[in-house]
Amino acid sequence: MDTQQKLAELRSRLAEIADLNGAAAVLAWDQQVYMPPGGAAARGRIMGTLARLSHDRFVDPAVGKLLDDLQAYGDSLPFDSDDAALIRVTRRNYEREVKIPSAFISEFYAHTAETYQAWVEARPANDWAKVHPLLEKTLDMSRRYADYLGPYQHIADPLIDGSDYGMKAETIRTLFAELRAELVPIVKAITEQPPADDSFLHQDYPREGIEAFSKAVIERYGYDFNRGRLDTTAHPFAIKFAIGDVRITTRYPKHSLSDPLFSTLHESGHAMYEQGVSPALEGTPLDGGTSSGVHESQSRLWENIVGRSREFWSHFYPMLQAQFPAQLGHVGMDQFYRAVNKVQRSLIRTEADEVTYNLHVMIRFDFELALLEGTMALKDLPEAWHARYQADLGVHAPDDRDGCLQDVHWYGGLIGGAFQGYTLGNILSAQFYDKALQAHPDIPAQIGRGEFGALHAWMRENIYQHGSKFTAPELIQRTVGELSIKPYIQYLKTKYGQLYSL
Amino acid sequence: MDTQQKLAELRSRLAEIADLNGAAAVLAWDQQVYMPPGGAAARGRIMGTLARLSHDRFVDPAVGKLLDDLQAYGDSLPFDSDDAALIRVTRRNYEREVKIPSAFISEFYAHTAETYQAWVEARPANDWAKVHPLLEKTLDMSRRYADYLGPYQHIADPLIDGSDYGMKAETIRTLFAELRAELVPIVKAITEQPPADDSFLHQDYPREGIEAFSKAVIERYGYDFNRGRLDTTAHPFAIKFAIGDVRITTRYPKHSLSDPLFSTLHESGHAMYEQGVSPALEGTPLDGGTSSGVHESQSRLWENIVGRSREFWSHFYPMLQAQFPAQLGHVGMDQFYRAVNKVQRSLIRTEADEVTYNLHVMIRFDFELALLEGTMALKDLPEAWHARYQADLGVHAPDDRDGCLQDVHWYGGLIGGAFQGYTLGNILSAQFYDKALQAHPDIPAQIGRGEFGALHAWMRENIYQHGSKFTAPELIQRTVGELSIKPYIQYLKTKYGQLYSL
Repeated sequence: MDTQQKLAELRSRLAEIADLNGAAAVLAWDQQVYMPPGGAAARGRIMGTLARLSHDRFVDPAVGKLLDDLQAYGDSLPFDSDDAALIRVTRRNYEREVKIPSAFISEFYAHTAETYQAWVEARPANDWAKVHPLLEKTLDMSRRYADYLGPYQHIADPLIDGSDYGMKAETIRTLFAELRAELVPIVKAITEQPPADDSFLHQDYPREGIEAFSKAVIERYGYDFNRGRLDTTAHPFAIKFAIGDVRITTRYPKHSLSDPLFSTLHESGHAMYEQGVSPALEGTPLDGGTSSGVHESQSRLWENIVGRSREFWSHFYPMLQAQFPAQLGHVGMDQFYRAVNKVQRSLIRTEADEVTYNLHVMIRFDFELALLEGTMALKDLPEAWHARYQADLGVHAPDDRDGCLQDVHWYGGLIGGAFQGYTLGNILSAQFYDKALQAHPDIPAQIGRGEFGALHAWMRENIYQHGSKFTAPELIQRTVGELSIKPYIQYLKTKYGQLYSL
Repeated sequence: MDTQQKLAELRSRLAEIADLNGAAAVLAWDQQVYMPPGGAAARGRIMGTLARLSHDRFVDPAVGKLLDDLQAYGDSLPFDSDDAALIRVTRRNYEREVKIPSAFISEFYAHTAETYQAWVEARPANDWAKVHPLLEKTLDMSRRYADYLGPYQHIADPLIDGSDYGMKAETIRTLFAELRAELVPIVKAITEQPPADDSFLHQDYPREGIEAFSKAVIERYGYDFNRGRLDTTAHPFAIKFAIGDVRITTRYPKHSLSDPLFSTLHESGHAMYEQGVSPALEGTPLDGGTSSGVHESQSRLWENIVGRSREFWSHFYPMLQAQFPAQLGHVGMDQFYRAVNKVQRSLIRTEADEVTYNLHVMIRFDFELALLEGTMALKDLPEAWHARYQADLGVHAPDDRDGCLQDVHWYGGLIGGAFQGYTLGNILSAQFYDKALQAHPDIPAQIGRGEFGALHAWMRENIYQHGSKFTAPELIQRTVGELSIKPYIQYLKTKYGQLYSL
């Protein structure tokens, strides 16, 4: 085979793997959206088979041989070219996957299935003792996982690589320390003032009205319903089957307008990223967002920077009032804007506002590092959790249910790399928005007219289309130079400075 | 490997294939129920990959070797045992699949995709000329397919084997001729009388009410919603992902009560068959209904013999009236019963009543045989269609749209074996019901109380649980002795004799 034949052979193998993964995604979506309870056992088996077939095909030594043979060709191409990126990224993924023994993967699936099931019961029962021994094994497996992928600077690095490839624990720790130093006084200043009244957001809002309004907004954002759809699940998510089929879900808790609406805006950001990947990358490992941080930058940008902005509501609030005259007819625009930007010290990460959210994330990130390092014992987690919430957020959970049992991440996966993406996403959302503003200073005016074309186009051009061609550090380098908290802090200070006359 | 190890190895390979097929079924369901248009291209690719992987794994010579090695063990077991059936049925499927060259399968998929697309456009445009050349190739491929699987008595036999294994063209031809001789005078006698008034069935019936009523009925039938669900599609169907997940769909045309309701009852019959397969057969080729005729016997039994019976409506009509007081409050039970059993000469098979339906099917079956034999030229099909409808049903379609272009079957598959199952199903539905009545004479009284336990249990015991352990001829032998039109004709004569005082 000559080089082009080898490349075609590699692409053909990767396309088959992409097809298996695409099928698995459809099954995962159905499992959460429409599957009847009786389907669960078989669904687990089928998804296990698809995962195994996909993994086996990827770690096939023939793939390694093709990558070896294509290395020189890849090196000869411009770094930006699709082929160079294909060979580079596939090799990186391949080298990671082959280092993990199959036995470890089986053990991991079995263990996380058991732990997840235990957590599902332990959380409502506030039963830390039930999951603690299982989580000890998770921690042990997380360390072993890091060791397979070593050597490393910090033991968390290989785990972080799984979600934010190329980001280093020490870099993030430094960045987060800077951010925390800025955030704590902002939160203090805001929460010393009387809280915003958001009681009118907790009336009975018929679901159909919320759905119609949310759909109208994200369609204006540029989410393409011809290549997606919106369904209802217990936990909102976005999922990709193909560039032509990227779906989102939301939930409709009773007496809430904000939760379903902003969840939909959030997931539409993830989905527009995936819909915007260049079709030339379909069927390869490059077809998909590059990291959890960059992904979260998009969900947070469209949810918060855009969706909670004054410009946005100056256009959309009359529409929302028309949809809900009984609930909002008497509520003025300023009052509404304050309410959807209410800041308060709280216990639950997923319900936290834009300002305090990162404090929740950083607590978890610090704990992941400490647990992996061994500087904190797992048995001390519940108390450490309470102590840190008291220190950082000034609140104390009455139990572990709303303490260290609140998030699924550690109970359904490894410890390490699970949380930093959320805050990296907030930081990046402001950096990307700033850069887009430099190119198109009239973006805020456009948003005020309900137009998002220039902002969406900048994101597509600079981020979406590239899929995973560039790692997050490479993409940051290309777009904004370097990771910096300045735009994000500036954004918060400006917005909340006005809101609270700080 | 010893015999038990070989059996385990065979089961493991078959389970993986079953998983791939189960995944493909989820994708097929989603494609018709929820997929956005933009997902089509990737979906086609993914489903192609799953089909290829499944086929390749099944025709693997290692499977043939295992089957050879297990032959003596299978022969040593009772015919009825799960292991004997597994080895016997798998070998039969294997020998069929290995005879078809991979190149033919690829050609078939490409050709039927093209033909189907052409038909989608040709039918509304009444454009036979557009599909005619494509259908000539379909006919040629159908003959080649039969030849791969030969030798045969009749060229249609290998094609019939694909849907009703073991049924022979000549047997069916003889049976259908007998049936036609009985049906034509019944239809004549009925249609000489004034038609039943069913105008009140064509009012505005809100969809939610139809859905609620239909769901209540099929739940009483024994369709398990814990292992299934009901959705909406353009064309109703039932589909199995696993014994624990068998879904159905229906449609809600404007101003129709009968179409959505009886479609749901029909599909619930297919679905109860699949839900009733013994869990011991899951993950093997035995997990699924044995033939299109036996499958249709269940859909037609629950739709017609039960769902259009006087006993059924004597129980359920008050419930339906309560659901639709404005539409049905003034309509008496007798009037309603006559309306849902209205008989009329018509052009469209899928809209035909219980009595004339088989005449539609037999026309198509005869044409399939004649086309394959070469005793009729494909170019003559449109005119032959009109002539035969005039002769058998006394109606003449104004065009080909409602003539030979009306059914998708030949335009999305091969010619041969596509239609006989519908009428075999009607015949068998009456035979099975008769046999169940002999065991439980109070079944009609139970139906009159809205109870279906004895009937469902008889079907599960005698038919459902066996999946594909027995071919249709074997199953017929075990349950009713031999295929016979007598119970079916008796059923029609009794029911319609009373309705029309014949």
